[in-house]
Amino acid sequence: MSIIVQKFGGTSVADTKRIMAVAKKAIREYKAGHQVVVTVSAMAGETDRLLNLANEIDPAGAPRERDMLASTGEQVSIALTAMAIEKLGASAISFTGPQIDMRTDDGFTKAKIRSINDAVIRKELDEGKIVVIAGFQGQTDEQEITTLGRGGSDTTAVALAAVLGAERCDIYTDVDGVYSADPRIVPNVKKIPALAYEEMLEMASSGAKVLHTRAVQFAAKYQVPIQVLSSFEDKPGTMIMQEVQEMEDVVVSAITHSMKDAKVTLSKIADKPGMAAAAFQLLADRNINVDLIVQNVGKEGLADISFTVERADLPYIQKLEKELLQLVAAQEILYDPKIAKISAIGVGMKTHAGIAARMFSTLAAKDINILMISTSEIKVSCVIDQDYTELAVRALCEEFGLVDEQVSA
Amino acid sequence: MSIIVQKFGGTSVADTKRIMAVAKKAIREYKAGHQVVVTVSAMAGETDRLLNLANEIDPAGAPRERDMLASTGEQVSIALTAMAIEKLGASAISFTGPQIDMRTDDGFTKAKIRSINDAVIRKELDEGKIVVIAGFQGQTDEQEITTLGRGGSDTTAVALAAVLGAERCDIYTDVDGVYSADPRIVPNVKKIPALAYEEMLEMASSGAKVLHTRAVQFAAKYQVPIQVLSSFEDKPGTMIMQEVQEMEDVVVSAITHSMKDAKVTLSKIADKPGMAAAAFQLLADRNINVDLIVQNVGKEGLADISFTVERADLPYIQKLEKELLQLVAAQEILYDPKIAKISAIGVGMKTHAGIAARMFSTLAAKDINILMISTSEIKVSCVIDQDYTELAVRALCEEFGLVDEQVSA
Repeated sequence: MSIIVQKFGGTSVADTKRIMAVAKKAIREYKAGHQVVVTVSAMAGETDRLLNLANEIDPAGAPRERDMLASTGEQVSIALTAMAIEKLGASAISFTGPQIDMRTDDGFTKAKIRSINDAVIRKELDEGKIVVIAGFQGQTDEQEITTLGRGGSDTTAVALAAVLGAERCDIYTDVDGVYSADPRIVPNVKKIPALAYEEMLEMASSGAKVLHTRAVQFAAKYQVPIQVLSSFEDKPGTMIMQEVQEMEDVVVSAITHSMKDAKVTLSKIADKPGMAAAAFQLLADRNINVDLIVQNVGKEGLADISFTVERADLPYIQKLEKELLQLVAAQEILYDPKIAKISAIGVGMKTHAGIAARMFSTLAAKDINILMISTSEIKVSCVIDQDYTELAVRALCEEFGLVDEQVSA
Repeated sequence: MSIIVQKFGGTSVADTKRIMAVAKKAIREYKAGHQVVVTVSAMAGETDRLLNLANEIDPAGAPRERDMLASTGEQVSIALTAMAIEKLGASAISFTGPQIDMRTDDGFTKAKIRSINDAVIRKELDEGKIVVIAGFQGQTDEQEITTLGRGGSDTTAVALAAVLGAERCDIYTDVDGVYSADPRIVPNVKKIPALAYEEMLEMASSGAKVLHTRAVQFAAKYQVPIQVLSSFEDKPGTMIMQEVQEMEDVVVSAITHSMKDAKVTLSKIADKPGMAAAAFQLLADRNINVDLIVQNVGKEGLADISFTVERADLPYIQKLEKELLQLVAAQEILYDPKIAKISAIGVGMKTHAGIAARMFSTLAAKDINILMISTSEIKVSCVIDQDYTELAVRALCEEFGLVDEQVSA
């Protein structure tokens, strides 16, 4: 019997009425003849409520305890969802991450999945139950509770789909698919019918909030077809799948923006080889991900190194300040949290040249200063002042034909 | 090194400011040279909030899922408490019930503790950490999450104290000790300096909300001295310990009342032996506790059986209605949730006669009708109409000398 994995985000389980609607969707697939696994996030606002409590006590509190705290949100949702399914007459059972031995590394607050014990799940599916599993959470070899980071429930769903050999992983959310840019910024932006894993990966890692990066990596690795669709409307969403020829005809598929990064600058460094490496090794050891890096050599042989990290990591970097300054023999460290990263993405870039140049000149035409640049085979990213985010995204959508023509004036 | 177990109830961890105060109390005992284990309940109101969500979906939802849900409240508290202790400079680590293998039976929503793996706790204590453990929760042999019922965190604390051989179990709460009656009803009621386990047990099981019944049973069995004291004031509380001679000089130590019960009547039963037994066996099989039972034989050989159960169990009994009526060949089933149970308790009853008679005549003098009666060696309980609760408690406190003389007019 084929298995469908369904994932419902926080807005889809925001209250008990919506949870009943989730239960109906699960039962519909079940009655259509599938075995159904449901993964849910915490109720909308719950994770923020919990982390606000933690921040009241200590914004740099032990990541282990933050995970102990945050993982409760999903546990609430699975219990309520299982009750709702049973209330509607089907049979259901809920499991936490530890209960299905969703094993992760010990990178608390952003742990990576290593293995899943699917035996527990298969046993319940074979008994005719709809199995409801907490997204976002797992446990280490020492049975410490971990979380997979924001959006981690997507990863849980795709990992489950992969290990169970599911036919499809349906990600239900509050939008009806993946758009070429944030529709709140570009109201007439186009919806994308189908995307390559590679493109979705670049979109997710560069600010599109639709799917978690790790989720797309898993899907690509295990070739799990993902469908992103609306919890609230019955219409087809966006399929994310293996690249097909037609996808390359589109030069740029999407313009993404991210405002969750901050720029850190280590200033006036005596420019000697190996120094930067030591600093980045220290950050890597503390599980702090560095994204873009730029090094400028100034007067008197003194250099500046700027890099971007997640804003949420700033308190941890501030704790390491002295160590960092010492490691690279820098004179000062500067923080700029008011930046935005704007990216143009498309598998079409592989066969079309000059995309970066078109992007730079479009921004220049709007007098937007580019602070940092990075490129990959299918992506160009620019860091700019956060104030110009909307302007930049709109201009680039126009430039690359990602907006529908105005229907009415 | 001696071990102190501290338990903090919901009002003691109601917000992050109070959690910081809890952390201070833990650190104070630690600095006084003890190893410290802290058990916390869910933040005040949290368990109700969660169960209200469950009730919105299904008031008779699967007990397994209710436990999955309700156990999250304590997990939130332990994470925040551990963070607070670390913020104040001491070292702490939190554990859920499953993580210390707090093993219980599978009586979901009121499971009983079977064993605890103290190795995990001792290891962390020996490393100098304050260990924070979730009250109220455990797991079955199949790793299903269970809860111990309302007030179960007390039981967790005492069970931990017993298994760790703790010097004392301090139960911090929002009152400064155990009173001879509810001070909200009898404002000038006396505080009890020391109580026998036996008395506390009868008080807990007959409505005094200070301590969970199972907690006192554990304490009595393993001879763990308990102190009930205030989270908010620094003064000695009430010691609960082995009976000493002086305790018997007090005839009645306390008047308790309970309004959490309901009366169920199986009416017009063909009065044959063994029928009632079958009905009560069915309830026992469903883990529904029956408290008082009264059987009246009326005209034509038809009998009525009335019994009391927790009001929360009424939806489950309603589900069994047909089966119950059939089992005892009764014509109808009646529910009366508007009852109160008033009890007089004292180890002194063992050596003083006529307490029941004094209780009945005191109630009669106030025109309060007695619906059901039960007695034990150290307790007399009467079920009355709930409307007369306060009147009955006040009259009995006067009768048995449990009020302080009026200090001012």
